[in-house]
Amino acid sequence: MYHIISIRDFERSDLDYLLDRAQEFDTGNYRPGMLDEKLVALLFFEPSTRTRMSFATAMARLGGKSISVDSVEASSIVKGETLADTIRVISSYVDAIVLRHPKEGAARLASEFASVPIINAGDGAGQHPSQTLLDLYTIRQSMPVDGIDVGLLGDLRYGRTAHSLALALSLYGVTLHTIAPGGLEMPANIALELRERGMEVVEHPNVEEAIRELDVLYVTRIQRERFPDSASYYNVASSYRITTDLLDGVKERLMILHPLPRAGEIDPAVDRTPYARYFEQARNGVPVRMALLHEVMR
Amino acid sequence: MYHIISIRDFERSDLDYLLDRAQEFDTGNYRPGMLDEKLVALLFFEPSTRTRMSFATAMARLGGKSISVDSVEASSIVKGETLADTIRVISSYVDAIVLRHPKEGAARLASEFASVPIINAGDGAGQHPSQTLLDLYTIRQSMPVDGIDVGLLGDLRYGRTAHSLALALSLYGVTLHTIAPGGLEMPANIALELRERGMEVVEHPNVEEAIRELDVLYVTRIQRERFPDSASYYNVASSYRITTDLLDGVKERLMILHPLPRAGEIDPAVDRTPYARYFEQARNGVPVRMALLHEVMR
Amino acid sequence: MYHIISIRDFERSDLDYLLDRAQEFDTGNYRPGMLDEKLVALLFFEPSTRTRMSFATAMARLGGKSISVDSVEASSIVKGETLADTIRVISSYVDAIVLRHPKEGAARLASEFASVPIINAGDGAGQHPSQTLLDLYTIRQSMPVDGIDVGLLGDLRYGRTAHSLALALSLYGVTLHTIAPGGLEMPANIALELRERGMEVVEHPNVEEAIRELDVLYVTRIQRERFPDSASYYNVASSYRITTDLLDGVKERLMILHPLPRAGEIDPAVDRTPYARYFEQARNGVPVRMALLHEVMR
Repeated sequence: MYHIISIRDFERSDLDYLLDRAQEFDTGNYRPGMLDEKLVALLFFEPSTRTRMSFATAMARLGGKSISVDSVEASSIVKGETLADTIRVISSYVDAIVLRHPKEGAARLASEFASVPIINAGDGAGQHPSQTLLDLYTIRQSMPVDGIDVGLLGDLRYGRTAHSLALALSLYGVTLHTIAPGGLEMPANIALELRERGMEVVEHPNVEEAIRELDVLYVTRIQRERFPDSASYYNVASSYRITTDLLDGVKERLMILHPLPRAGEIDPAVDRTPYARYFEQARNGVPVRMALLHEVMR
Repeated sequence: MYHIISIRDFERSDLDYLLDRAQEFDTGNYRPGMLDEKLVALLFFEPSTRTRMSFATAMARLGGKSISVDSVEASSIVKGETLADTIRVISSYVDAIVLRHPKEGAARLASEFASVPIINAGDGAGQHPSQTLLDLYTIRQSMPVDGIDVGLLGDLRYGRTAHSLALALSLYGVTLHTIAPGGLEMPANIALELRERGMEVVEHPNVEEAIRELDVLYVTRIQRERFPDSASYYNVASSYRITTDLLDGVKERLMILHPLPRAGEIDPAVDRTPYARYFEQARNGVPVRMALLHEVMR
Repeated sequence: MYHIISIRDFERSDLDYLLDRAQEFDTGNYRPGMLDEKLVALLFFEPSTRTRMSFATAMARLGGKSISVDSVEASSIVKGETLADTIRVISSYVDAIVLRHPKEGAARLASEFASVPIINAGDGAGQHPSQTLLDLYTIRQSMPVDGIDVGLLGDLRYGRTAHSLALALSLYGVTLHTIAPGGLEMPANIALELRERGMEVVEHPNVEEAIRELDVLYVTRIQRERFPDSASYYNVASSYRITTDLLDGVKERLMILHPLPRAGEIDPAVDRTPYARYFEQARNGVPVRMALLHEVMR
């Protein structure tokens, strides 16, 4: 059995293998009934649209079926059941479990009690490895990942997708450019871990200074609840907003990515430029998750 | 590509074509695996039982699969995502989207951003075209629609199903009889539009006066929240309630329809009369939605 | 047509027949596409994880499809529709309905308005027959049920699973041992009914006194809301908690069962003993529900 818990568990060869498999699914090089008679439980104890729906889509495209819990309220969690008990029971019903949970470490804990593979679909401030895989996949569809310049913009303190992507990119000789508001910089321990993995990490005071160097600009949400009041939020958010003005003189192959949902970080006018690749990125969730589901259940 | 947004977009020939197709599905004249390997997203951002479940049923009966969002709370909408972004992403996963949304015009907006067909399953006070098609279908199963007398009873001011049905019926030379409490009459602009389409529209002060002339009595809910207090609501609601007493001397072929759910507008004793056709009408949601889903995805 | 409403409706031969069928499904002695093209509605108007998911699993394992309502909020119930109307409509869409509802008697009422089979998946303080069947099934997998000693521990006043299991066991010559906190004893009318069915019912003041006699110990939740304050709850709950200390000198074949979710009634250390059979019991929900679904729709 094969759990997908954290990007830290993967060697570069594992990532490349999964990305190659995703490519095969993406080009239709698969049998639609591959997961016929397979059943997956989608346990989403936190709101999600695209992650849950793209896992359900991936399963359906492979001929399999899904059963789901969509909210804490509709489930026995309201009766005080432990995650360990829920996982033990549900893993006796299905062939794999996709789990989103508000607590960091929940997926790892679940994997200790499960009798079927667990795929972590986000555990609080922790990991979200299928997101990182689809981010890598999207980059790799346009350019070799090795040695490129990737900028991470936004909340780098709490943003799990940014941490997870940075760790994966450290396996590809990427130079990392960080651009974060004061107080939302990347935690020192993560920056240290990246440097210990041999990654060059360059901090920038603002996006204007960095953008012309970048092959990929990865934008993340700045959450209002991180700020003491609306005024300081709007002040920061507006100076970290991507507009078409910022795109003068950027590299022709620049890709702007965003894990979505966005909430103002990228001006809709940017959508019409060739740099905007975030909808393609979202679409790539399907082949990447097909590859993961197939891998753990084949 | 082919969106189903508003009954106003349909010519009579379109309606007749879809109703003929529904008839074929209803009589089992179809291949059960017709939509094998097709996937539809049911995006319901408002409560619904019968519309959502009949679309899911229709899809299952054709061999296809559904993925769904059942509430705003369980989705990324809570993170402030725009409908345009949600639609762009979800339309990269599936083969068609069925959308219910609280805001009028939402389905039209969605169709501008979607890369797959959109079926409007209700947009606030706006349109709900599959409901109108199943209403027409139910009538047509019993009698030719041309030239009949149809009464609309209840809240004709806010009731979208009544407006939409009236517009469709105007293509069939129907005489429309309206019976509405003071303050809930059909808006003047809609009555004008109907007359411009050549429809005869007759207002009646109460249902007793009209019912003996009718081939179809279409009852809609009178919503409590439209009234300043409970007393005035109960006063109005009770004088617009259909009871068996009212049915003396009606035409033998009279059909009583209701889009359901009902909340007291029709006395349950009426259910046992041959005039009560609202459960048959609800049942007809399945073949009509099979026809729509097949049409947009074939 | 064949409704599954209450364990009281079953003769011993019915139970044995269903348990034999479950055994066949459990050992893989069935055709996976047996319910191809069948559609079931899972109407859950109360929170549930394992019951809902095991019915969905059972249906999927047989090749069938499910459509579901997971909460009152997402459904037309919020618009005030009666259960009778909901059932009439939904039963025109699907081949069977699985219903969980907060009101006792809801499933029986539903069966009067349905045009397809109803399976009661719990009606308030009433019945939950598929739970009882899986309880019996779990016992029968280990030992013949006839003449064994079964202890019921916990809230025997309000606990529907305990009442329902006791009624079923009365058909097997079982001796029943009841252990309940003061105020939560089995209601006199149920104890009387059991004795009239020829069952020996022995009350015990505490679990220590009874446990060495038992072949099966069936533990149920003691609900905090039954107590005037936290202190009296914790006092009672702690003296009804199963720990490994209690297991000295028990019969080798003792099975500890629990309908789950548990909330402290059984110390997790007990999970590692051979007596702990509650996860196996939960797993058995699938073959038992496969048997029920197949039975009502074949």
